[in-house]
Amino acid sequence: MPSVGSALWRSLRAYQVYGANTDVGKTIASAILCKALRKQSANENVCYIKPVSTGPQSEADDQHISRYARGVLTKCLFRFDDAVSPHIAARSLPPPSDAAIVQAVCTQMSECAQNWRQGTVLVETAGGVHSPTPSGSSQADMYRPLRLPVILIADHRLGGISSSISAFESLRMRGYDIDSVFLFENTRYQNHEYLRGFFVKHSIPTVALPPPPPRQDSASEDEEAMERYYKAASSTGVIRDVVSSSAARHLARIEDLQSMAERAHEKIWYPFTQHQDLSSGNIMTIDSAYKDDFQNYNPTAPETVSNSSLIQPTFDGSASWWTQGIGHGDPTLSLSAAYAAGRYGHVMFAGGIHEPAISLAELLLQHLANPRLKKVFYSDNGSTGMEVALKMALHAACVRYGWDVNKKDLGILGLKGSYHGDTIGAMDCSEPSTYNEKVEWYRGRGHWFDFPKVMMVKGQWVVHSPSGMEAEFGLNTTFSTLAEVFDVETRDNSPAALKYKKYITATLENLVCEEGRKFGALMFEPVILGAGGMLLVDPLFQRCLVQVVRDNPQLFGHCSPANHLSSTSVTSPGGWTGLPVIFDEVFTGLYRLGRFSSASFLKVHPDISVHAKLLTGGLVPLCTTLASESIFGAFLGADKSDALLHGHSYTAHAVGCNVARTAIGMMLDMEKDGAWDEYKRSWVGRLGYELEPEGSVDLELIKGDVWSNWSKGFMTELSHREKVEGVVALGSVLAITLRDDTNAGYSSTATSKLQQRLRKGSSDGSINSRVHSRVLGNVLYLMASQSSKREELLGIERLVLEAL
Amino acid sequence: MPSVGSALWRSLRAYQVYGANTDVGKTIASAILCKALRKQSANENVCYIKPVSTGPQSEADDQHISRYARGVLTKCLFRFDDAVSPHIAARSLPPPSDAAIVQAVCTQMSECAQNWRQGTVLVETAGGVHSPTPSGSSQADMYRPLRLPVILIADHRLGGISSSISAFESLRMRGYDIDSVFLFENTRYQNHEYLRGFFVKHSIPTVALPPPPPRQDSASEDEEAMERYYKAASSTGVIRDVVSSSAARHLARIEDLQSMAERAHEKIWYPFTQHQDLSSGNIMTIDSAYKDDFQNYNPTAPETVSNSSLIQPTFDGSASWWTQGIGHGDPTLSLSAAYAAGRYGHVMFAGGIHEPAISLAELLLQHLANPRLKKVFYSDNGSTGMEVALKMALHAACVRYGWDVNKKDLGILGLKGSYHGDTIGAMDCSEPSTYNEKVEWYRGRGHWFDFPKVMMVKGQWVVHSPSGMEAEFGLNTTFSTLAEVFDVETRDNSPAALKYKKYITATLENLVCEEGRKFGALMFEPVILGAGGMLLVDPLFQRCLVQVVRDNPQLFGHCSPANHLSSTSVTSPGGWTGLPVIFDEVFTGLYRLGRFSSASFLKVHPDISVHAKLLTGGLVPLCTTLASESIFGAFLGADKSDALLHGHSYTAHAVGCNVARTAIGMMLDMEKDGAWDEYKRSWVGRLGYELEPEGSVDLELIKGDVWSNWSKGFMTELSHREKVEGVVALGSVLAITLRDDTNAGYSSTATSKLQQRLRKGSSDGSINSRVHSRVLGNVLYLMASQSSKREELLGIERLVLEAL
Repeated sequence: MPSVGSALWRSLRAYQVYGANTDVGKTIASAILCKALRKQSANENVCYIKPVSTGPQSEADDQHISRYARGVLTKCLFRFDDAVSPHIAARSLPPPSDAAIVQAVCTQMSECAQNWRQGTVLVETAGGVHSPTPSGSSQADMYRPLRLPVILIADHRLGGISSSISAFESLRMRGYDIDSVFLFENTRYQNHEYLRGFFVKHSIPTVALPPPPPRQDSASEDEEAMERYYKAASSTGVIRDVVSSSAARHLARIEDLQSMAERAHEKIWYPFTQHQDLSSGNIMTIDSAYKDDFQNYNPTAPETVSNSSLIQPTFDGSASWWTQGIGHGDPTLSLSAAYAAGRYGHVMFAGGIHEPAISLAELLLQHLANPRLKKVFYSDNGSTGMEVALKMALHAACVRYGWDVNKKDLGILGLKGSYHGDTIGAMDCSEPSTYNEKVEWYRGRGHWFDFPKVMMVKGQWVVHSPSGMEAEFGLNTTFSTLAEVFDVETRDNSPAALKYKKYITATLENLVCEEGRKFGALMFEPVILGAGGMLLVDPLFQRCLVQVVRDNPQLFGHCSPANHLSSTSVTSPGGWTGLPVIFDEVFTGLYRLGRFSSASFLKVHPDISVHAKLLTGGLVPLCTTLASESIFGAFLGADKSDALLHGHSYTAHAVGCNVARTAIGMMLDMEKDGAWDEYKRSWVGRLGYELEPEGSVDLELIKGDVWSNWSKGFMTELSHREKVEGVVALGSVLAITLRDDTNAGYSSTATSKLQQRLRKGSSDGSINSRVHSRVLGNVLYLMASQSSKREELLGIERLVLEAL
Repeated sequence: MPSVGSALWRSLRAYQVYGANTDVGKTIASAILCKALRKQSANENVCYIKPVSTGPQSEADDQHISRYARGVLTKCLFRFDDAVSPHIAARSLPPPSDAAIVQAVCTQMSECAQNWRQGTVLVETAGGVHSPTPSGSSQADMYRPLRLPVILIADHRLGGISSSISAFESLRMRGYDIDSVFLFENTRYQNHEYLRGFFVKHSIPTVALPPPPPRQDSASEDEEAMERYYKAASSTGVIRDVVSSSAARHLARIEDLQSMAERAHEKIWYPFTQHQDLSSGNIMTIDSAYKDDFQNYNPTAPETVSNSSLIQPTFDGSASWWTQGIGHGDPTLSLSAAYAAGRYGHVMFAGGIHEPAISLAELLLQHLANPRLKKVFYSDNGSTGMEVALKMALHAACVRYGWDVNKKDLGILGLKGSYHGDTIGAMDCSEPSTYNEKVEWYRGRGHWFDFPKVMMVKGQWVVHSPSGMEAEFGLNTTFSTLAEVFDVETRDNSPAALKYKKYITATLENLVCEEGRKFGALMFEPVILGAGGMLLVDPLFQRCLVQVVRDNPQLFGHCSPANHLSSTSVTSPGGWTGLPVIFDEVFTGLYRLGRFSSASFLKVHPDISVHAKLLTGGLVPLCTTLASESIFGAFLGADKSDALLHGHSYTAHAVGCNVARTAIGMMLDMEKDGAWDEYKRSWVGRLGYELEPEGSVDLELIKGDVWSNWSKGFMTELSHREKVEGVVALGSVLAITLRDDTNAGYSSTATSKLQQRLRKGSSDGSINSRVHSRVLGNVLYLMASQSSKREELLGIERLVLEAL
């Protein structure tokens, strides 16, 4: 079943009719609107959909519309006899799923779009905005994928001002746009006057409807009275005006979407983009996003000949630059952000504390489970957080080794292909490359090791030595499972470990003692180097690097004039030796690779750990740099100038901290509740795609939880394809390296064909139609969110195989 | 009248009773609670407050409580006879203001706190959460300053699930905590079952109450039935449990507040803080914030002997590090954030566009009204935005002048005392100082001019030459108004302008031609250097600097080997000459100094303009770097590596862009609606403090809108004080330079006494009691928000004068 996307057609207007409460006159207002629409133009087709109806059919809303608004196509999609809330009415039989209801609405609307040259659809909900659906969820959540413009029927009764405004707020915080508000006039309570004033501030027209006639004694009198009422109420100038202004808003929305790429092309300077190559045609206009999908405006949809919507879902295959964990448009995150905004706004953090900041700090310290880490420093993004980490480490090293503070030739130790951010200090931590070589103030400061990489080739996990370094690292080694590659404690005693350590030690001795280089930190992204090309580093190599640096403090301090190792901090449990070790977990941390911390794969505790991206579940920028007591101590002193004089205005902003706390809590719950167990079972089993039946596999067998949201069988199949050099998958990351003998590296375009193919979607539309992916040289990667559904990912896997 | 703060006492628990709708049984539930509380303990005093009651007194809620919950102190504070919503009932007479109602509630609660050893107060609202107050505002907004824990009475009727959840969401997005939920059992609709499941996910207990008896025929039977009902309903185990768990939550909240500073001291690494000097005792625990005030936990409140709350308001005198424009906890910004979160979450920006990003870009381009600026680049904070600006400018200069890309000795031209952020690239744009001298990778790259400063001394505006430079800049000059200082076009022909230009030209010639230095940008904060000490630079000097740089392109390119000036871009209207000019408006822009753009004070258009802080009105981090077409063009090329390869994961995050759009819209409206006219009148008038009567002053007279939220009379008075060296005020900024002959500069402590004095508040409590301020060396500054009320600022002015 393809994903349901937002629904928008040029010639068909569709609205969702929500009520501020039950019994506020949704159906009467709908009938008036249906009649008014029919009167507006002879060509206007009108369809009224009641997706879920409870109570006897004879009294049903769609019957009422049929009776009084003749010529209107009416549909009821799911009917329950009991006149109670759908979640109770549906108890006696298996209730339709939310997806099935939304799909049925979508199908009905699409039929109208296909059959009619012009028309309007009203989709009337049941009860109030949050009234339960048959499955027990909230209506406002269930219908959110469609994100239809809302006609809100406000409450004219005593208390109705409050319920109307609250209903409006519940809709807004789910990303709905309100087209117009209707309610009955009540001269005593005058809610319509108050609400008109309220909604005008939001540029929303409010229409007061005449109250319906009192119920008459006989059925026929009643029907006559209603006929007269509808005739009058649907002919007023106010109704005519709102119907036509609503049509104008519909066109304006489409025009806005249509012009947006052009306007962006004129006014936006894009990150990481060569604008010479950019035309407005290849700017993606995003109307909204929901769960794993963007809802894109698709100007080329051939709507005149088909029923396709102008907005179509596209799988967000880079997890929006590696930020999404919970999915787009999540109401829990939205409310969490709003709560912090309402309670604090932003409050200055220097010398102050608030609950979201301290709670988040405690949550991270607890779950990173690194006994070294004791202090949390907040900043705004991965780049600033890495600059903070760098300042911490360099200063700690200078204090320990008694180096001059202005050691301008002080460098860091890192890995080739590393990326730590785009501010100058973070850039300087990477070796020269296309990313930075034309930046005037860039100068790489450090030494970057080449390293053995891991990928699956023809069904087997291979550790590759970098070319020309087979002598140092040994020939390629093959493992049958990724778990064996990550069994670093067993591999500690392998010949590879000895070779790695020997090479690292020799290199460092040469750099320090022969070349006289000075280093102040060891810094890398544990397990996978992201922007460098989703390179899976042999975890044993990273582990050896840390071990060699920590075991050889004499290497770093001994050429310095004042080599006074402070023995207390060296021997204290959390003290660092050799160099402070910084793990940049901005990309790899917080369940990206399937575990809370990616450091745990290496079974090594860094002295400084940096976290961002998934930290807020994918909502707002925030970063934390955690450090050990021993690092912290280097900044204590009598002088203010000894302190870490770094800060940003929005440091530890309450919205970010609160959302992060919520998002991390949700991911912890997912793990606890076994949300990923089916992935884990599939990785430990032998079946490849198939799910191992629950209980058939002892999850304990998955040594160290090495698993991915992408199927093992899919990977294996990919790795045998001719065009594929190798594949990597871990946690939510999938990286496909394509063969490209002519032009490797960042500027390669080898993968662009595959990327375009995924963008177009499957040939038969049977699976999630479109995938937005990003490439890094000859590597195309796909990234799921932590809440992606297995069924959807399996569809994308089929699409990738079809495309290759 | 002192600000009303959040109310919290150890021995007095206070709750706000909100209803999900009208007629859901708030008063019945309150009566049950009152009785249950009285039963819980013999010592428990209970007070029931109905702040606003409508309808006949005999049927009033407080009468009902008096009748059935004997021993409870009941209070009705404002009574209206008509049984309609208070905003209608109050029409016939001048309605009490929101502040008066909240103050009355506060006073009543304080009395209870003072008189009772132990007790509980219930404050029952009228109707639903958003039902209008007598003034017509929403109750949930009116009572927000108190931020009492909420007892929410949910709706048991058909449709009540929806209205209860929406009411909950409206409260949460205003920063309320919900203590517990009560509603009547209804076996048919079973709302209590559904809502119990809903609220348990938010850790909120839900209590189902037995439905009240049906109305009896005679009054006495009715009363008897109610008596029996209340007796039974208030004695159940469920009620006992929730009353005692609620008491436990109250204590847990206090314990949490009490422990927070300690926990922060242990786990938080603070920005810009020497931790050696920090104890938990001087960490400020912020329970919440509202408008201009923090709500601080005050552990030293001597509550046993007085009625003071454990939480007390403190004026946020640094506008939370210069971020606040709209005030804390604003519901409009909260809803704006929630809407964007619900519609998009965050969506990847490279190659994509969404409505908040394009609208914000267009809004800024329009209102900055700088014809040069054509492109908007998004990043996360001022520091990253300045790094982007720097990369733009340096690259444009290198392309223009044909310099080697790796010109490592390329510098910038700036002003002494500048601050542009804490990432290494931004730091390198400032001259060596305490801020950066111990940062290992810092090296200032550039030349920084000394400059003449402006301040008010003894009632007159004086332009001071920096010491030792009287020969170059001339002796001090005096002006009678600040507007004259800012009349730069008239001053263009003054001797000062000639001297400035001569000095700047000579300095540049020496640097470039004698010393062989190379420069790639001119960069400064227009008008006021913030972190450098709130220094008001003579605007004429900044203007001359730009003019000299632009008029002398030969100065910058002529020593280069390949001096091929592109004549097209030089002569094109938006083209830059000499050097790209960057204005860092991060602090000074967006109405901080009373105008949309601070560049307008200099009547100069920069080529690059950077905006942050006030950009989101004070909610979340976001930054924009705007550039001219001519700068943009330098990055066009065949190669991807020619592009500006800079970006952050959350670039142009929808929440930030949408909130910014809302906040800027609100500030534009304030200006349009004349929200600041009274300040402006006071600055142009002769009265000092007094408001000039409306119409008495032609606002056109205020040449160039030079005004401040701080009174001219107050400034004048300050400037005559013996301890004061000089004063500066412009827009929302006030900076007081204290005399300190011994120890000038950043590490000075001369101002700490004044700071402590303001923190303590006024001696008689007659004015806003406490002010949180920040100091920079011997400068104490106070910063209002753009929405600060004049009355409150006048109170603070009195406090400052009293403290000096």
